[in-house]
Amino acid sequence: VTNLVARVRDEVARVLTPPPSPPLEERGEGVGMILAVSGGPDSLCLADATLATAPDRSLVPIIAHLDHGLRGEASRADAEFVRTFAEQRGMPCAIDHVDVEAIARERKVSIEVAAREARYAFLARVADQVGAQLVAVAHNADDQAETVLLRLIRGTGLVGLRGMQPVCPMPNAPHLTLVRPLLRISRAETEQYCRDRELHPRQDATNDDLLHMRNRIRHELLPLLERYNPGIRTVLARLADTVASDLDIIDDAVRETFNCITRSGEVSSPLASPLQIEFDRIAWRNLSAGLQRATLREAVRRVKGDVTNLKYAAIEEARDVLNSDASIGEIALMHDVRIKVTWRTFVIGDL
Amino acid sequence: VTNLVARVRDEVARVLTPPPSPPLEERGEGVGMILAVSGGPDSLCLADATLATAPDRSLVPIIAHLDHGLRGEASRADAEFVRTFAEQRGMPCAIDHVDVEAIARERKVSIEVAAREARYAFLARVADQVGAQLVAVAHNADDQAETVLLRLIRGTGLVGLRGMQPVCPMPNAPHLTLVRPLLRISRAETEQYCRDRELHPRQDATNDDLLHMRNRIRHELLPLLERYNPGIRTVLARLADTVASDLDIIDDAVRETFNCITRSGEVSSPLASPLQIEFDRIAWRNLSAGLQRATLREAVRRVKGDVTNLKYAAIEEARDVLNSDASIGEIALMHDVRIKVTWRTFVIGDL
Repeated sequence: VTNLVARVRDEVARVLTPPPSPPLEERGEGVGMILAVSGGPDSLCLADATLATAPDRSLVPIIAHLDHGLRGEASRADAEFVRTFAEQRGMPCAIDHVDVEAIARERKVSIEVAAREARYAFLARVADQVGAQLVAVAHNADDQAETVLLRLIRGTGLVGLRGMQPVCPMPNAPHLTLVRPLLRISRAETEQYCRDRELHPRQDATNDDLLHMRNRIRHELLPLLERYNPGIRTVLARLADTVASDLDIIDDAVRETFNCITRSGEVSSPLASPLQIEFDRIAWRNLSAGLQRATLREAVRRVKGDVTNLKYAAIEEARDVLNSDASIGEIALMHDVRIKVTWRTFVIGDL
Repeated sequence: VTNLVARVRDEVARVLTPPPSPPLEERGEGVGMILAVSGGPDSLCLADATLATAPDRSLVPIIAHLDHGLRGEASRADAEFVRTFAEQRGMPCAIDHVDVEAIARERKVSIEVAAREARYAFLARVADQVGAQLVAVAHNADDQAETVLLRLIRGTGLVGLRGMQPVCPMPNAPHLTLVRPLLRISRAETEQYCRDRELHPRQDATNDDLLHMRNRIRHELLPLLERYNPGIRTVLARLADTVASDLDIIDDAVRETFNCITRSGEVSSPLASPLQIEFDRIAWRNLSAGLQRATLREAVRRVKGDVTNLKYAAIEEARDVLNSDASIGEIALMHDVRIKVTWRTFVIGDL
């Protein structure tokens, strides 16, 4: 075991250690954990380090691999490679095949989006079939830096800069927990880990040219930034880390404020959306710009379920009206979320 | 008056409009405002737009120019140019000369740092001499984007990403208010403004090659990012804007929490630093990671006055010890700020 191998294993163990409170429910036979393994260096490193770690943590790892059908024979060979890898280590292994191109065509989304959705759906399905609570994916520190830059370039608030979280609910299956034990390990380190451990990874599926913008960031932007600051990857990872903890503070403050100045009502009409939220306009106007923005965003989140398509400009336009002397009016926040303004209150909902 | 000229003037007027509460103290003769004018396109645009705006706002603008003595004859010619510009408009004008290179040598700081400090000291001195309350500088939206990227690359938390603020206390003279009315106007727009208004700016002093990293960002990094997203400057300005409002939320939450879990004490020994801050360690350990970091940082700010040299790693090491079972110990946060740990409390100060 080289120093690097020990360091990677320590890091994997750190992320996989259950928090003191609330504890992961531990059944007699341990907690099942699905390991997403593409066959590339990152996921082989994750699988190997988790196996070295798992017995201590009462984790039962199960390997899962989805053949996306995007690279013909090479895709099938990847799947065989993963099956053999699992067999050699005596681990259970679930493999499935999909035609991502067909899905993308049918659902009219990009190959990238179709591939990710198919993969996450597959991982959640396997987890539910075997009763696993955790799904582990092999995103590394370089992926994190690229994600932060990508979101920065596309335009993002703090939520985007937080990057990927080490532990969070699985987006498509919130009853499962998604973990990323390698988020502080660099790509160079997972590759070195594979050499040190004499693993022989396949070309990583994330290196294909599906992800055009991400590849430009990886091969063009990050090397340039590295000439400005050789520690740029650490800097971006640390930024994501502090932003995540700052967001916790904001979330608490927003929740508290929100509860003080709003009340929610069910709408009786069977045709209407179930939820409307009424704000005390006078109290809201006394908030700082930050809390004004955050409470409007929170209302949309509660009405709609997510705020992905809520535009910054729409929030600012709404604030202009709500802070003005206008005593009555209607504002569109999104195509199906509107604000109805009166002098003392305003109501957000699918009006 | 072209559309652009009108737009720039509106934006300058918006920033210079006093907030409804608390109001700027307005004396009979209006509020004095020092305009820092280098003679470049940004500061000429600012001066011209402010003059068009000032009578409405009861602002009395006074032009100020510091000859940094860095470019010999050209520097002196800049000063003469600014003097003539002010005379032609019938504005009072203060001009001073310093030898920035000599200051940098003597104080062992970079030319960049010496120039900025000399400039801000000069502006504050002029403001105090004429009883002005405001100091206006001509930073534009491109400067803001560059600042955000520069800080991002060097490594920063949220405070750095906020970029420059449109209105804030002057760092070296907090009784004065520093305003940046052009923070949403691009460099191309200030140049166009000068053409539209037939102003004939000198080469901008900020374009000299003093600011090596900033120039690389301007001429290399931003053009690359623009190929990824043509709206990158807007995206970065908006990020700075939302981060600023998110920071307000955090500051409120931190202040409230800080007051709950600490008490400050004067130290009686005449040799010791005046201030120590005692934390309730049990209460502190129950905070989220974000509030743990923020309250430690706030304590250093109160003990030291600023946190510029407080390292992220030092905070994380301190958190490791404070969250551990260690019942006694000492931790260095900076070379002159230490934490003394007991089981139930810890004290931060110049111990």
